[in-house]
Amino acid sequence: MTTERSGGDQGEARLPGPLREHLSSPGTRAALRVRQGVLAAVREFLAARDFVELQAPIIGPVTDPGVRGAKQVDIDYYGQRFKLMSSAILYKQASLLTFDRIFCVAPNVRLEPPETASTGRHLVEFHQIDVEVAEASREDAMELAQALVVHVIGTVMRTVAGDLETLGRDTGAFTELLEQPFDRITHAEAIAELAAMGHAQSRDSEITWSGERVLSHKASRPFFVVDYPKGSRGFYDRESRTRSGVLRNFDLIAPEGYGELSSGSEREFEYATLVTRMRETGENPAKYTWYLDLAREGIRPSAGFGLGLERLTRYITGLSHVWQTTAYPKLAGVISP
Amino acid sequence: MTTERSGGDQGEARLPGPLREHLSSPGTRAALRVRQGVLAAVREFLAARDFVELQAPIIGPVTDPGVRGAKQVDIDYYGQRFKLMSSAILYKQASLLTFDRIFCVAPNVRLEPPETASTGRHLVEFHQIDVEVAEASREDAMELAQALVVHVIGTVMRTVAGDLETLGRDTGAFTELLEQPFDRITHAEAIAELAAMGHAQSRDSEITWSGERVLSHKASRPFFVVDYPKGSRGFYDRESRTRSGVLRNFDLIAPEGYGELSSGSEREFEYATLVTRMRETGENPAKYTWYLDLAREGIRPSAGFGLGLERLTRYITGLSHVWQTTAYPKLAGVISP
Repeated sequence: MTTERSGGDQGEARLPGPLREHLSSPGTRAALRVRQGVLAAVREFLAARDFVELQAPIIGPVTDPGVRGAKQVDIDYYGQRFKLMSSAILYKQASLLTFDRIFCVAPNVRLEPPETASTGRHLVEFHQIDVEVAEASREDAMELAQALVVHVIGTVMRTVAGDLETLGRDTGAFTELLEQPFDRITHAEAIAELAAMGHAQSRDSEITWSGERVLSHKASRPFFVVDYPKGSRGFYDRESRTRSGVLRNFDLIAPEGYGELSSGSEREFEYATLVTRMRETGENPAKYTWYLDLAREGIRPSAGFGLGLERLTRYITGLSHVWQTTAYPKLAGVISP
Repeated sequence: MTTERSGGDQGEARLPGPLREHLSSPGTRAALRVRQGVLAAVREFLAARDFVELQAPIIGPVTDPGVRGAKQVDIDYYGQRFKLMSSAILYKQASLLTFDRIFCVAPNVRLEPPETASTGRHLVEFHQIDVEVAEASREDAMELAQALVVHVIGTVMRTVAGDLETLGRDTGAFTELLEQPFDRITHAEAIAELAAMGHAQSRDSEITWSGERVLSHKASRPFFVVDYPKGSRGFYDRESRTRSGVLRNFDLIAPEGYGELSSGSEREFEYATLVTRMRETGENPAKYTWYLDLAREGIRPSAGFGLGLERLTRYITGLSHVWQTTAYPKLAGVISP
């Protein structure tokens, strides 16, 4: 059994043993069934709300640059340099030319620095439940993310109860979650809270992983952090029109030390602003030809989020590391199948 | 509308226009909804038969070499040469250590030669509905593939009837299909039939695309071709124990010129035979360490198949090219999003 747990306390996370042992363990079997149950519940929820599921490309001329610390993977595509997708963000915005509401279960690859192998929450190859809604506000996206997470947890507690029991997860932890809306704090409030606890953080950047862990451990229910400062995120998170330097975005953080489950935002969609924001974030607009060509003629305002499949499954199962929720885990710097 | 049709007569297939036009076309919208309906029906069918859905890796140390004429994509993975998956075959066999019946909707990338861009049935980036069953025979796999295709077509005729109508598909073409088992001919019989029609083909290799098109055009219902000769397929298609040189495999061919939908086989699983077959097919066993390490200690006998999502959707919609069934088509040699 690979059911070792540490309540999201990543420092104690074990690394994978031999592949045969991992694949044939009852813990892996249970975790993969929960993962399947999560996706079934996601599809049920989104299909009932008229979302169309697409399969996003896994390679393309350019990918999401907003992946703190991780490197992109290059490939040679008929003599042209292409990338493996680090997120589906560009395709999500473009796909709203076809449908008002879309989602994908998108495979992503990010060459994370080797020191992330033991954080409990990083995999080089992982999946995001990627959701995008035309004409939606950040608040719409947050409500949707919250309702989706509540639906998924409520559903899997019923559909894979035996597997959660095998994994030793106390589903009582979810009772409170299923009844109330998730709290919301601003990035500035989160920084102030951390400072008061002696964890100094920059006001101008992402909350560090250690800071996020502190906040996550303090919480008993998932909560949103909103209003990240410009400069901390990719060019596609829209800047507030009334509060300069503040992005119309959010993270959804799981309690008990499990940390970030989801990131989302209202999206920038105006051509001139996209070009300016790319330049501000050190990106060369010339790389984004296909996307900017679409934006110049008009893409739709939207909001959406990416919800980490392995992170959500880990939180639900109570396992100590995201690798335990996947059949063929790839940890940073480790050569494995 | 991109509803141009030519009954699977690939020579007339149009190439994609500008992305905005493709994404905002009612034809694309309808085709993507049919595609979504196909996957919903696949999941319904397989879930009811106790299959567990996994997400196969998209990168790894080695991939399926049995991809006639196409090149594999290399990546640098922490200093090691990795590949993009050209099929999920190795992971499908390994995953039977966890579950008796598995499937994936697996993204694959194959750098096809540029002349395939206009065949109507080749994409560089595509998806396979990959199914594998432990302890199953080829006949089990064929029956499952047939039942799955019949279920999918019967279901989408109901669930996305309006979209099929938008695309001008005469669903009467499917009535006969839904009532009877699919015919089966051997590879040798197919070669003889082609020779009688003046299309000479080698007895020792795959049926050529032009030969397959002739057979497909002659048929009014899908049919199986079985018993391909050793040397025409990858090392994982099991050789008959009683008829030397004959593989326990099959292709499922759609009628009306749409051509191959699916390939499958009983799998080789014995370590020594796998090594011999790799050497016979020009593969270096040293590249397959993780897979052969598992096989040495024992993997399970199995059979399964890969069913092309875009090809099945094209056949159901009656569109002239597989690219019309995907939002971001990648055709061989063409740089596109």
